[in-house]
Amino acid sequence: MENSEILLRDSLKAVNLFGKDLICTRDWKMEEIKAVLELAKDMKKNRFSSRYTGVLKNRTFFMFFYNPSVRTRQSFECAATELGGHAQYLEPGGMRLKTKKSAGETIEDAARIMSRYACGIGIRILENKLSCYGEGENLLREYARWADIPVVSMAHDKYHPCQGLADIMGLQEHLGESLKGKKLLLKWGHGALARSWCSVQEALLLYSRFGMSITLAYPEGYDLDPDVVEYARQRCKENEQKFEITHNPVHGYKNADVVYVRNWMSPNAYRDGEFRKEEEIEKALRYADWICDTDKMKSTNNALFIHPMPIDRGHEVADEVASGPRSIIYDVGENRLHVQKAIMALTMSDLIPDGR
Amino acid sequence: MENSEILLRDSLKAVNLFGKDLICTRDWKMEEIKAVLELAKDMKKNRFSSRYTGVLKNRTFFMFFYNPSVRTRQSFECAATELGGHAQYLEPGGMRLKTKKSAGETIEDAARIMSRYACGIGIRILENKLSCYGEGENLLREYARWADIPVVSMAHDKYHPCQGLADIMGLQEHLGESLKGKKLLLKWGHGALARSWCSVQEALLLYSRFGMSITLAYPEGYDLDPDVVEYARQRCKENEQKFEITHNPVHGYKNADVVYVRNWMSPNAYRDGEFRKEEEIEKALRYADWICDTDKMKSTNNALFIHPMPIDRGHEVADEVASGPRSIIYDVGENRLHVQKAIMALTMSDLIPDGR
Amino acid sequence: MENSEILLRDSLKAVNLFGKDLICTRDWKMEEIKAVLELAKDMKKNRFSSRYTGVLKNRTFFMFFYNPSVRTRQSFECAATELGGHAQYLEPGGMRLKTKKSAGETIEDAARIMSRYACGIGIRILENKLSCYGEGENLLREYARWADIPVVSMAHDKYHPCQGLADIMGLQEHLGESLKGKKLLLKWGHGALARSWCSVQEALLLYSRFGMSITLAYPEGYDLDPDVVEYARQRCKENEQKFEITHNPVHGYKNADVVYVRNWMSPNAYRDGEFRKEEEIEKALRYADWICDTDKMKSTNNALFIHPMPIDRGHEVADEVASGPRSIIYDVGENRLHVQKAIMALTMSDLIPDGR
Repeated sequence: MENSEILLRDSLKAVNLFGKDLICTRDWKMEEIKAVLELAKDMKKNRFSSRYTGVLKNRTFFMFFYNPSVRTRQSFECAATELGGHAQYLEPGGMRLKTKKSAGETIEDAARIMSRYACGIGIRILENKLSCYGEGENLLREYARWADIPVVSMAHDKYHPCQGLADIMGLQEHLGESLKGKKLLLKWGHGALARSWCSVQEALLLYSRFGMSITLAYPEGYDLDPDVVEYARQRCKENEQKFEITHNPVHGYKNADVVYVRNWMSPNAYRDGEFRKEEEIEKALRYADWICDTDKMKSTNNALFIHPMPIDRGHEVADEVASGPRSIIYDVGENRLHVQKAIMALTMSDLIPDGR
Repeated sequence: MENSEILLRDSLKAVNLFGKDLICTRDWKMEEIKAVLELAKDMKKNRFSSRYTGVLKNRTFFMFFYNPSVRTRQSFECAATELGGHAQYLEPGGMRLKTKKSAGETIEDAARIMSRYACGIGIRILENKLSCYGEGENLLREYARWADIPVVSMAHDKYHPCQGLADIMGLQEHLGESLKGKKLLLKWGHGALARSWCSVQEALLLYSRFGMSITLAYPEGYDLDPDVVEYARQRCKENEQKFEITHNPVHGYKNADVVYVRNWMSPNAYRDGEFRKEEEIEKALRYADWICDTDKMKSTNNALFIHPMPIDRGHEVADEVASGPRSIIYDVGENRLHVQKAIMALTMSDLIPDGR
Repeated sequence: MENSEILLRDSLKAVNLFGKDLICTRDWKMEEIKAVLELAKDMKKNRFSSRYTGVLKNRTFFMFFYNPSVRTRQSFECAATELGGHAQYLEPGGMRLKTKKSAGETIEDAARIMSRYACGIGIRILENKLSCYGEGENLLREYARWADIPVVSMAHDKYHPCQGLADIMGLQEHLGESLKGKKLLLKWGHGALARSWCSVQEALLLYSRFGMSITLAYPEGYDLDPDVVEYARQRCKENEQKFEITHNPVHGYKNADVVYVRNWMSPNAYRDGEFRKEEEIEKALRYADWICDTDKMKSTNNALFIHPMPIDRGHEVADEVASGPRSIIYDVGENRLHVQKAIMALTMSDLIPDGR
């Protein structure tokens, strides 16, 4: 047994995540989050090692896509395959679930039967399938209530834990293990896609817990969930780091170590129980000065550029930045695979070689 | 080799199901049905045993969903994965099959090529894809005529063999191996989904062959296929058991050992070559007294509650019964997986360790 | 090690296809094409040999179906499964790709991330998803430009390399290794499906390179891509074989060794950036004398009948020919699986046992 494996085993032995849901990283302790990251890094280094290729052998992971997605589907399905298992791509459009208005199966019945078949359930549900903010989170928690197997968010209206973990892993690869005191500009991006809050809110949760100093920048009228913002502010305070909000499109670049750009919808995106995507896009397109370009990046501390993808190039960010030498978008995208493998291995397998 | 395995091998050696279609259990001898059930029980007990995890290694099973389904898809795809193979989810919407009206590929051509690729074909086709009762059965028989590999029904307009086998397996787990003389109430359920006859007709075939005494209860105007009813009546007679039909919603509960509830459509569901789902639902909703509730269950012999799922709770059955201590719906749902694994192993693999 | 394996290894060692795209066989040398065919034949003979079942173990192959397809999907997904890997079925309808008109992800971003997850990408895109001939080819080349992993055509507007290779393999199985001097009638078929040029153009490229003598027959107004026709003419000339074009529906059968039938669209199928399928079908249905029937086949040299399927029986070809003793359509259909396995093994795996 090589030395690195011994260290890994010791660290993983300290936590027991078997059976645990991952709806939001707030529900997880720092040592649990760190165990995932450590395992993910080893899985990246030893991607097809026999240590890992049988971890979900003959096991099934259900992926429920209320909203379609290419990247999330690709990375989760790959993850299951690389662990020796299989991820089923399911669209609940073909599922007769009970709603207030129509007959169908209850989530209790669906989740309890699925628990007999599979080792875990991933769920993705975003704005245009919902009538108000928070409804997606409630759906995931309802599944988790009845399922005997772990429920993992594959992005929902509030959070995107796998994206957040992939971000952190990418930053650690480029800035070193400790992110404490690193200066982050987390900013709204001009754009034509009216995006969910899930990735940026997850980023707020995690980046603040990892001790970064945060400038959150967005045009007036684009406030995020106050509860999430308050959580991040408290974590920054505990870590003796700055947390500030600005509505100035050039503010926050100065000396930044990391610039994170993402378009997001306004809190007015829902009206009368409907998601008003077109209105949101029209409004967002007015803020052309919120593009992240080479000029703005000049005042940073040679900052890394990070974005959860897919990128709306030319709106959110200029090509020169997105494809520039300090952009780590592809590394972070790749890390989705590794963190998801680590999460699945730790929560869904009794075969992970950690002495459990 | 452990003793149970020896017994299993002896029993399985007695039948040779390799290459056999499963469109309806009527086509199978009792000893063949019993071999499937015996193997399914061992597969449940030793779910990930190396005896089974390589049975379909590198093999492909095609699943043709003319009608979508979550549970059937989940359980068949899981089954293939747990046997080491892979089930492809195919929607013939994307298939240019020849019909009376349009150019396209013949079933002969489709089935003969598929036989070169896969180890088996599953087909699901229900009412709203058909212009009359029996058309689905004909389609399956046409595939089976040309395919060199087994064709398995994943539910069609007439029968649902895998559901029937999962039912029997569940009853045997809870009532003991012999079901002879056990009293079954098989009843129509109030409901808003206009369901297929396939599960209840399969139940009639199998429950009568296993020697149960049957009360079939439904409102006037909800007759099932007379040929299937006559078949069940004959099997009950041979087994010296009662077979009766009632149109009284409270009749048949008395001393019942098993209560099976399911909504189904009327024989008038098709008109002018179209399936009239909305009319059927409207009509079915009138029979509110056909709900199965705690009150009615009181006169039974502490009966097991069984339903092929998904359940329309509050219509077909009250929550207290469906989630009550005598409900075996989740066990039966789980058994779908195990019987399907057994069917696939016996009909599609030359690797099942039974001495063949 | 058996003798055949030694020969195989020597032949495969002579080429290195790892990482190579297959958009069109024109891009490949004859010795590379022959290596694929040789490996495919061995894979057919030793289909589930342990030599091959682990070649893509735990690896993912992405299949992008801009156009749906049953056969191509079945055969590619089977191929990955039989090599121990997994093919993901992806429909870019669920993908927010950037177009001239709408925001979305660039192909650069999509391809670069996918290269981090998978071992290869297959793409299928045909006429009704395009606004002009050649656009599909450009899309594949754009993916290939940015992807670090091989891009394989699963049929696009210009070519269908896997079909062409399966054809050649089938002919070699029935006529012997050398096709030099064999007389081919490649003819347009009466039909109601307005088919793509991809299969016939690929056939022209490959059949001419393999030294066949070619009669290309079609009604006036059904010219193929002049560049492809010229390529085939040159290859025939180099090989000292005849290449002729005729517009007579009975011409070319005389002494033919192989008759290849396929309906195809006219060069006028696109107008104002749209694919006019209905007009094409209406026009094609006028040429009823272009059916291939027993009568016409009588003057051949007991010719093999070949067609890339699906067949429009009764239009393109009479049943007696398609199902007759000289039809090799099912063998060719099966060969799709084997050539695709060989292509994937050689271009996407570092595990193929050839000494690399």
